[in-house]
Amino acid sequence: MLICTNCGKKYPMEEHAQRCALCNEPLEVERQNGKMRGGIRVWDRFRDFYSYMPLDMRYSLGEGDTPLIFSENISRELGASVYFKNESINPTWSFKDRGTFVALNRALSLGFEKIGVVSTGNMAASVSAYGARVGLDTYVLLSSSISREKIAQIGAYGPKMLLVDGNYGELYFESLKLGKKLGIYFMNSDDPFRIEGYKSIAFEIGEVDYVIIPTSSGGLLRGIMKGFVEMKDSGIVDKLPIPVAAQAKGCSPICNAFKEGGKIKRVKNPRTIAHAIENPYSPSGNAALEVLRKNNGICVSVDDDEILKAQRRLAEEGIFVQPASAVSLAALKKLKDIHGKRIVLILTGSGLKTKNEYGDNISICKMENLDKCMEEML
Amino acid sequence: MLICTNCGKKYPMEEHAQRCALCNEPLEVERQNGKMRGGIRVWDRFRDFYSYMPLDMRYSLGEGDTPLIFSENISRELGASVYFKNESINPTWSFKDRGTFVALNRALSLGFEKIGVVSTGNMAASVSAYGARVGLDTYVLLSSSISREKIAQIGAYGPKMLLVDGNYGELYFESLKLGKKLGIYFMNSDDPFRIEGYKSIAFEIGEVDYVIIPTSSGGLLRGIMKGFVEMKDSGIVDKLPIPVAAQAKGCSPICNAFKEGGKIKRVKNPRTIAHAIENPYSPSGNAALEVLRKNNGICVSVDDDEILKAQRRLAEEGIFVQPASAVSLAALKKLKDIHGKRIVLILTGSGLKTKNEYGDNISICKMENLDKCMEEML
Repeated sequence: MLICTNCGKKYPMEEHAQRCALCNEPLEVERQNGKMRGGIRVWDRFRDFYSYMPLDMRYSLGEGDTPLIFSENISRELGASVYFKNESINPTWSFKDRGTFVALNRALSLGFEKIGVVSTGNMAASVSAYGARVGLDTYVLLSSSISREKIAQIGAYGPKMLLVDGNYGELYFESLKLGKKLGIYFMNSDDPFRIEGYKSIAFEIGEVDYVIIPTSSGGLLRGIMKGFVEMKDSGIVDKLPIPVAAQAKGCSPICNAFKEGGKIKRVKNPRTIAHAIENPYSPSGNAALEVLRKNNGICVSVDDDEILKAQRRLAEEGIFVQPASAVSLAALKKLKDIHGKRIVLILTGSGLKTKNEYGDNISICKMENLDKCMEEML
Repeated sequence: MLICTNCGKKYPMEEHAQRCALCNEPLEVERQNGKMRGGIRVWDRFRDFYSYMPLDMRYSLGEGDTPLIFSENISRELGASVYFKNESINPTWSFKDRGTFVALNRALSLGFEKIGVVSTGNMAASVSAYGARVGLDTYVLLSSSISREKIAQIGAYGPKMLLVDGNYGELYFESLKLGKKLGIYFMNSDDPFRIEGYKSIAFEIGEVDYVIIPTSSGGLLRGIMKGFVEMKDSGIVDKLPIPVAAQAKGCSPICNAFKEGGKIKRVKNPRTIAHAIENPYSPSGNAALEVLRKNNGICVSVDDDEILKAQRRLAEEGIFVQPASAVSLAALKKLKDIHGKRIVLILTGSGLKTKNEYGDNISICKMENLDKCMEEML
């Protein structure tokens, strides 16, 4: 069963439904429960939670099962236990791969032969990679303002790309309509089965006090919290973490609505260095707000300066992330009452995906003076 | 015990020895053996094979345990079973992390407080990340011809970088001398404990007929084959795979010497698009030749055009690698008598690490014409 996150209307699993026909809010797969099973991969250990659909491992590129890294330094500084969930160690170097894997299984189970996505980067690369793996025609709708660099990363996998000139925010909704007409399964940011993929992140975390999540469409937040809820329903964990949505100040529709108390509103002039979370009208914004409100959640927005500092700090912990991932560390620094708490920061994607200008501690030396140059550096 | 790969001279484990004092060839840790143990991570399951030194998991960034992906398409084409060992899914997106993790443990067990590396890219990023994680001063010696882009990737982790102007080939040997003098553990390409890290790749593969390895310094080839030998000695596998060293035609000192039958000679004007394996004088060249000769091995060199085609082909399988990794697929296409064989291709690093110019299937469209544009693309 697929259920509307807003009005509760139900749709049978056989129907290719993504958003509610009544209220246009996103649907989700009804709550699953089960036991942890044996196996190495998360898809094996938590297969009970995907029992509505067989996950065909031939389509897998090895997504998930990412490291959970304890930070001694930041933990000591804050008097808490801080962990990084490093999602940059995925087949296309972002968390999107978990969602793409499950959504692709869904698309194939419904008989689709074409897949598509509306994305500005990470998700486009992910869908293109999996589309290539399975040999499906893959359509990627991009904003016409996208950089050559990003096109190269996506284009490597050989998808068909369309640069669209116009209101990029509308494209999400347009693509779902077009997809139905043209027989393309658009697995956009908050497709119900993409959400199902993201819940595997919670399965790999277990029981903690806080989980801090870079938030754009709202899909990742919804997915992770669905995973925790299903684990609690099943008795695998005793309590839910407090969800912390982390947004960029220059584009924080969810934090705005969370503070004001109403529904999501479009941000007029989005502007942040964290481009991967620069979504001015989160398609799962209302559903994400509901998740935050139900679970004692928090929404924190941080500015670009804080984001860049956090990115640098994470690299100094050995983890190089894109700016959109660093919002979670920047948000952590603003939380109160975290003494003694266990906190997981979701790091969504690799620092190689964005242009960077690092390299301050740099000297130049002639080979014959190597001895002297090295001694001067010590 | 550390043993010279050439003359067999022995050095006690307590001594910080990297190359033989007599013949200047690389040393290796004496062969280990043991049983597979329980656990999820390779370091746990194969801990018997590192029993000479405790591996402190606090230094780990989650390296290893990478996916082994079956390729239906290429297997069908060639009538063989072809697998990709995707090492781009590592903390700094190359196989180097496995070696850095073990070498870092070695450095700390000897009491070093400074580490260093001579590298053109992947290894520099890896050592810088782990040095940052543990809080050691980290020194990176780079060729002065390195691109700004690569400096940014390495520099993010905050190491001290020295651009050296002169014969880059000498720098490897100079750094070992300087390191001893200045108290810096240089964990270069074929440090004995770096090799120990690479053997974990074999542990994750098990029994196969061929393993194809992009080869530059010779360290990766030596490490992987050491892992297979130790597994065979221990009865975990029944036979060794045939090692295939894959090099770029524009820089193939190992293939040259393999054909001519002698020792490694410096390549005069190295030139290939596969920069990560553009080492004109492999410091483990002679040791790698010995491994090839002892094990019925093969050395295959491929040109830049073949490399780029293979890179594209791998992306169309869903795996985007750097050109240096694509040499293994290009080499596979040149192997004979592989019908029915099980073959593993080592894919060493991420395609995000190099500049790319993909993006042919691209169209531009105004939002109001989206319908029509999409229909034209189908």
